[in-house]
Amino acid sequence: MSYRIEKDTMGEVKVPADKLWGAQTERSRNNFKIGPSASMPLEVVYGFAYLKKSAAYTNCELGVLDIEKRDLIAQVCDEILEGKHDNQFPLVIWQTGSGTQSNMNVNEVIANRAHQLAGQTIGKGEKTVQPNDDVNKSQSSNDTFPTGMHIAAYKKVVETTIPGVKQLRDTLKKKSKDFKNVVKIGRTHLMDATPLTLGQELSGYVAQLDYGIKALENTLPHLSELALGGTAVGTGLNTPKGYSKRVAEYIAEFTGLPFVTAPNKFEALAAHDAIVETHGALKQLAVSLNKISNDIRLMASGPRSGIGELIIPANEPGSSIMPGKVNPTQCEALTMVCAQVIGNDVAIAVGGMQGHYELNVFKPVMAANILQSAQLIGDACVSFDENCAVGIEPNNEVITKLLNNSLMLVTALNTKIGYYKAAEIANTAHKNGTTLKEEAINLGYVTEKEYDAWVKPEDMVGSLK
Amino acid sequence: MSYRIEKDTMGEVKVPADKLWGAQTERSRNNFKIGPSASMPLEVVYGFAYLKKSAAYTNCELGVLDIEKRDLIAQVCDEILEGKHDNQFPLVIWQTGSGTQSNMNVNEVIANRAHQLAGQTIGKGEKTVQPNDDVNKSQSSNDTFPTGMHIAAYKKVVETTIPGVKQLRDTLKKKSKDFKNVVKIGRTHLMDATPLTLGQELSGYVAQLDYGIKALENTLPHLSELALGGTAVGTGLNTPKGYSKRVAEYIAEFTGLPFVTAPNKFEALAAHDAIVETHGALKQLAVSLNKISNDIRLMASGPRSGIGELIIPANEPGSSIMPGKVNPTQCEALTMVCAQVIGNDVAIAVGGMQGHYELNVFKPVMAANILQSAQLIGDACVSFDENCAVGIEPNNEVITKLLNNSLMLVTALNTKIGYYKAAEIANTAHKNGTTLKEEAINLGYVTEKEYDAWVKPEDMVGSLK
Amino acid sequence: MSYRIEKDTMGEVKVPADKLWGAQTERSRNNFKIGPSASMPLEVVYGFAYLKKSAAYTNCELGVLDIEKRDLIAQVCDEILEGKHDNQFPLVIWQTGSGTQSNMNVNEVIANRAHQLAGQTIGKGEKTVQPNDDVNKSQSSNDTFPTGMHIAAYKKVVETTIPGVKQLRDTLKKKSKDFKNVVKIGRTHLMDATPLTLGQELSGYVAQLDYGIKALENTLPHLSELALGGTAVGTGLNTPKGYSKRVAEYIAEFTGLPFVTAPNKFEALAAHDAIVETHGALKQLAVSLNKISNDIRLMASGPRSGIGELIIPANEPGSSIMPGKVNPTQCEALTMVCAQVIGNDVAIAVGGMQGHYELNVFKPVMAANILQSAQLIGDACVSFDENCAVGIEPNNEVITKLLNNSLMLVTALNTKIGYYKAAEIANTAHKNGTTLKEEAINLGYVTEKEYDAWVKPEDMVGSLK
Amino acid sequence: MSYRIEKDTMGEVKVPADKLWGAQTERSRNNFKIGPSASMPLEVVYGFAYLKKSAAYTNCELGVLDIEKRDLIAQVCDEILEGKHDNQFPLVIWQTGSGTQSNMNVNEVIANRAHQLAGQTIGKGEKTVQPNDDVNKSQSSNDTFPTGMHIAAYKKVVETTIPGVKQLRDTLKKKSKDFKNVVKIGRTHLMDATPLTLGQELSGYVAQLDYGIKALENTLPHLSELALGGTAVGTGLNTPKGYSKRVAEYIAEFTGLPFVTAPNKFEALAAHDAIVETHGALKQLAVSLNKISNDIRLMASGPRSGIGELIIPANEPGSSIMPGKVNPTQCEALTMVCAQVIGNDVAIAVGGMQGHYELNVFKPVMAANILQSAQLIGDACVSFDENCAVGIEPNNEVITKLLNNSLMLVTALNTKIGYYKAAEIANTAHKNGTTLKEEAINLGYVTEKEYDAWVKPEDMVGSLK
Repeated sequence: MSYRIEKDTMGEVKVPADKLWGAQTERSRNNFKIGPSASMPLEVVYGFAYLKKSAAYTNCELGVLDIEKRDLIAQVCDEILEGKHDNQFPLVIWQTGSGTQSNMNVNEVIANRAHQLAGQTIGKGEKTVQPNDDVNKSQSSNDTFPTGMHIAAYKKVVETTIPGVKQLRDTLKKKSKDFKNVVKIGRTHLMDATPLTLGQELSGYVAQLDYGIKALENTLPHLSELALGGTAVGTGLNTPKGYSKRVAEYIAEFTGLPFVTAPNKFEALAAHDAIVETHGALKQLAVSLNKISNDIRLMASGPRSGIGELIIPANEPGSSIMPGKVNPTQCEALTMVCAQVIGNDVAIAVGGMQGHYELNVFKPVMAANILQSAQLIGDACVSFDENCAVGIEPNNEVITKLLNNSLMLVTALNTKIGYYKAAEIANTAHKNGTTLKEEAINLGYVTEKEYDAWVKPEDMVGSLK
Repeated sequence: MSYRIEKDTMGEVKVPADKLWGAQTERSRNNFKIGPSASMPLEVVYGFAYLKKSAAYTNCELGVLDIEKRDLIAQVCDEILEGKHDNQFPLVIWQTGSGTQSNMNVNEVIANRAHQLAGQTIGKGEKTVQPNDDVNKSQSSNDTFPTGMHIAAYKKVVETTIPGVKQLRDTLKKKSKDFKNVVKIGRTHLMDATPLTLGQELSGYVAQLDYGIKALENTLPHLSELALGGTAVGTGLNTPKGYSKRVAEYIAEFTGLPFVTAPNKFEALAAHDAIVETHGALKQLAVSLNKISNDIRLMASGPRSGIGELIIPANEPGSSIMPGKVNPTQCEALTMVCAQVIGNDVAIAVGGMQGHYELNVFKPVMAANILQSAQLIGDACVSFDENCAVGIEPNNEVITKLLNNSLMLVTALNTKIGYYKAAEIANTAHKNGTTLKEEAINLGYVTEKEYDAWVKPEDMVGSLK
Repeated sequence: MSYRIEKDTMGEVKVPADKLWGAQTERSRNNFKIGPSASMPLEVVYGFAYLKKSAAYTNCELGVLDIEKRDLIAQVCDEILEGKHDNQFPLVIWQTGSGTQSNMNVNEVIANRAHQLAGQTIGKGEKTVQPNDDVNKSQSSNDTFPTGMHIAAYKKVVETTIPGVKQLRDTLKKKSKDFKNVVKIGRTHLMDATPLTLGQELSGYVAQLDYGIKALENTLPHLSELALGGTAVGTGLNTPKGYSKRVAEYIAEFTGLPFVTAPNKFEALAAHDAIVETHGALKQLAVSLNKISNDIRLMASGPRSGIGELIIPANEPGSSIMPGKVNPTQCEALTMVCAQVIGNDVAIAVGGMQGHYELNVFKPVMAANILQSAQLIGDACVSFDENCAVGIEPNNEVITKLLNNSLMLVTALNTKIGYYKAAEIANTAHKNGTTLKEEAINLGYVTEKEYDAWVKPEDMVGSLK
Repeated sequence: MSYRIEKDTMGEVKVPADKLWGAQTERSRNNFKIGPSASMPLEVVYGFAYLKKSAAYTNCELGVLDIEKRDLIAQVCDEILEGKHDNQFPLVIWQTGSGTQSNMNVNEVIANRAHQLAGQTIGKGEKTVQPNDDVNKSQSSNDTFPTGMHIAAYKKVVETTIPGVKQLRDTLKKKSKDFKNVVKIGRTHLMDATPLTLGQELSGYVAQLDYGIKALENTLPHLSELALGGTAVGTGLNTPKGYSKRVAEYIAEFTGLPFVTAPNKFEALAAHDAIVETHGALKQLAVSLNKISNDIRLMASGPRSGIGELIIPANEPGSSIMPGKVNPTQCEALTMVCAQVIGNDVAIAVGGMQGHYELNVFKPVMAANILQSAQLIGDACVSFDENCAVGIEPNNEVITKLLNNSLMLVTALNTKIGYYKAAEIANTAHKNGTTLKEEAINLGYVTEKEYDAWVKPEDMVGSLK
């Protein structure tokens, strides 16, 4: 492999000739061989691209960067956002806890690529745009990384998580309406209970997801606040007057999202409670989705020796010989995602709680976990929706059989023949393994006609008062 | 010990003669000998007292309970709320997951005590008020327990947690103002960095708590929704028309808190995402408080061989021989609380995710954990505030010494003598273990007068732009 | 209330006259009003009693404590262990993270009670036995608390947890043998699969518990190591020669358990990885027990509209009107315990990871969590065993019906008539909702006699090769 | 892109022409678009390669597979293990919870590649080796995936985790010896305490890691047990006699690791407590490593305004202007890894606890998390070792200054001049901000010569008795 020499304040470093990064990135590659390379999420890099471009615009506007440099920097940032340099960010999550080296990775790539765009050759001549003095102007790793992290997480939540959850929610809502007249046995403690409609049952899932989306949206204002402008310790040292507010406005403009400058920069550097807060809502969604998935796979279990009330789509061979063995694979994928998100929540709490003085140095691990959770929930909801939820159908035959077999319907007779006779009917049917109707007639308490008139599950599902 | 006989549908049970509870409570005592007795939080019992009284009023108003029974039930509920029957609730958390037996415990105590209040003797004659037919009328364990749990958790959060956190927040806010001119060294990566004021540093803590309180308040609307009226599976079977809304209004009136009926009762029985949601915010506060406590104990460390920038109150002998060994005991208590709350968050997630069909049967463990966390955070903030935060003072001598010793101040010379000379000064001082001022003068780059005029930490703490 | 005056190095404190504790305990009561009083587990106090007695014996033997004091101290320790002074330990978990104040609570109670035993009056005259100089001789809070914590946790694990788990394990083992010929449908992905015996199914649970017990036992050697003798920072300052080893021998003798002195006292004070390790095994048991409980309640679900393969004991009224509604309440209690233990594991990790320098100051929260988990698992296993597991019976009728209805049995025909014909039979039965036998004969691929001879589920459960 | 047609029991599927996988893999790619592609760890694929080869050998030996097929299968497995087909495994973690589709991915790749090796063209002619009938012979996804998972996890633990931890442990051990005479101040509650040597302090870390390694090794026997031979539900249906034991022997032979067949296959399919158990030990190591890293960065903090007792290597520019700002970046990377591992432990517990009946369907998420944790801990220990630990040096000047400044040394005078005079000296020095020596002489209690003779920190660090 051929190399070129790059320098930083510690001296010279050999860098692969075909790469745009510089000395500090290369040092980090060598110093942190932990897990697979390039594990730092690209979403964070893109967040950096937005903020570097915004900083260049603000610095230019405030008179500390010339317009040629601004445009070169902005042009590279746009290229990065187009995905043209994805292979130029080789660093791992497990680096400096401030993400300094990823900040420098971005600075170095922008500087070298700008040099190329200015018609120069990398490694030759003074850099047209300096990574520290120009690209990183009015910035510090300490305020850029949390800014990049917030941009990345916010975008992921509003572009992937919420739309994914809403898509599933809307399907469940539609199904809830479709099945509003499907009366079925209710179950509490996993045991037979009084009836409800399948539509009502699904409406509970819709409500769960609505609450989850609301909880997630409640966290967005905090997440929309950006640390940029705090520089090293939050005081904003070395930033021109008006910088913080203006740079956030540019970021809002370039991303099309309502970012604002954080009112307290000390909090924004030293704590990442906004990440903790947003991930708390993702965890809530994981809890909800686990419940929903579990119910659906239980109700679809069988086909012969389970509950069998629901039919779910067969997307892949479940068993080479057994027809009807439709494994609830989407439920399984979704609940595995839930397990991961619940675990990630702890990783984020453990990182968030350990800030010291002016800087929390668990930034990369917090960023990686929230991005993974937000992505997985969004994707898994879409996958679950498209490959399972939209195709859910009631097995009416089974539903009716299980409903009519149930002994809980006897409660409908209480007001007609009294509690004790009703209980006697149920007891007898339980003992004999017969139906309520049979025993009700056998015992002489009701006629067949009366039974059919009185014991109507559809009258027991009420509408909530 | 003397006993009396109580009955339920399974038969007779011997109950201690001096106790108000009945057969089902006694069965539960014997069937669930898990951990210390009476671990079910009394706050849940009080939540039940509010709802039983409210149900009696609603039932009466809607014509299904006579006024004498209503008044007897309400009178016992008031006695329970006055703490007169605290020893009548012996059950444990680790019982039926619907909390059925605690519901029956309350029903039985109310019924037996009402019998007494009606001038009768417990165990003699037909009960004046029936535990199931009267006290539990229009109710099910499945909707009462989550209602009691929401009432208890909501009250605890607004009466204990939020006031406690606010008290600490207000003290930190005041201290932040008091110390707004105390310029000190900043630290990032635990290493010396550019200066800030102690007031700025504390303002970050204030911001954290403000965000935490806001996050907690965001969860209250969901927590204010009550399951009551859903009865067994959420359909509201066996409730009179108008019951759900009216009973929530009574609960709001009796508690003075803005409770409303849950719009979807299926969600309210089968999932407890409101508990997950509120506890997520408690966990966020734990994360914040851990950071704050850690900072304070690090800054108060010493007295001689630590950081020593803060002086905290000495509340107990730290060492029998060593003066100034003031252990940060309040920080320790508070961070232990944080550890517990972060653990409780997982217990709640694990419980919340495992609802099945129409009922989540992890209600008691979820209730116990959220009540513990809400109590501990509130109490620990007050304890920390009164026994530590209010007494925090800067050790100005140490702060000044550490600030002036720091090499980071050299950045102030950049604009006067250039980056390279400034760096040379710092390097020389670092190598020789001397001060910047000494070397700046020795190297002949500045005069003493210039140094004193130019290197002013107070000019480096900016105000955020 | 009447008071007496107690003193410590900070001055005088008023203490309730009828209490044996002294100044430092009283200060702690006032300084740490966090959660319910006396939350520090009594098991820790008893652990202290063992170690104080052992220290007195060792100090006497090594010539630094006279025999009269030794005997007075030992006598009080014995009284404490008999439970005579349980109400003398009012402190909370949420105190100094070293547990210093609980150490002093024990020292003060022993000193004052010894004064009484010596025929004196508390608060009058010089204390016969000094709390610091005599009771705490050759000790520090920093080595006593972890010692008390290890003694308490070890005892709880071997006296409560392991016997409880073993009791349940033995019942499941017996049931596994009893049901070794009960052939039933297997289920994977919750879907019908090839058959196995109920005995085989239960044998998996037995294996899980055997592994869990083994894992727990693997952690005991680390837990058996005691910090005592390390004193303040692990160097053993102020202990007589030979003390560490000898005091551990006394503790082993008095407890009848194989305690030894920790080979590295620095680790024993600054980290509590032994607690982390043992609790990890408790968490594993929680994971196992959750799986087992879930299976049992799923198999016992119904009675009509669930799986219904198992019949579990009815311990309390499940429904006032519905016979056969036997709620799996023991499963619910046990799984709630599992949720708590999994949460406690995180609390312990969060505490364990944050030791600083020579001392971990999360001792009380770690002690409280491990003791709770160990107690709950032991108790819940016994409760589950006695009130559920021993009474589990197969519902043979249901088991046979579900087995014979299953389409998976068709695999038995593969070797007789070929895969394609077998699959055709299954497909036809699935489509028509009929049985394999019906369609096998209808299609003319086998005779009834052949079918009965070839499709024998009992031949499909193999014995493992 | 060009395609070929592959078939499974559900019909035809278009597969990219240049890929070796078949229909079921392609279906899974389309049905599970969750997170980045190919997230299923390659280590699991390699585990499959070992087991497929071993199964082929066993099947051949037991007479159910001919030798040509065996050799073709084995040859492809060897190619996979050489990394030649890494890009043929595009599936994600978030698929069927049994990992069925990854099993089929391996089967399909082996079958198609074997067809090539047999001189045929993929997609043309009948497959020389059938994916289901030959490659998967005597297997099921349900027993292969856990087998692959155990092989992968075991290898990772013994080849990466343990060697990594040991490497760091050995360095710390060496440093502990090197610094055995460096007397320094001890700290408890972060406050100054009695002295110890730096060697003693480090010995505590060594002990922690020794315990962690031991704990991890304790879990290996369970992890070495393989599910293979249990097939679909644990009964071993469709395996030849002697298969289970023999196939494990082949796996042991091919991997060179002591794998054995699991004594209870029902446990091995339905629960993954071995993964829970091993990860519990990884979590313990995370707890230990977090403590160690925290200590080191605290002791290295400064250089001027922190503790400054340790000097750690400068691996990258910490600050462009400030010399001596050596950020503890390796500590930060390592503690981020610890946070992740502690979170992963919860993800694994949540997955492990939710097995149902004969199959746990959280296999892929459990596999992915344990492999990540095992890799990260091993890698991070090596990185920390090579880039930090080996270069740790004491800053003797600072250590001595902090030691001598400390007031705790006064305890050495207790036995010479009595407790009260000693305390008076300390108090006076604390009040005046002077040294003990100054005040001891000023107060006239000792001469300078006496002081120097009596107050020797090196006499206070003892050797443990």
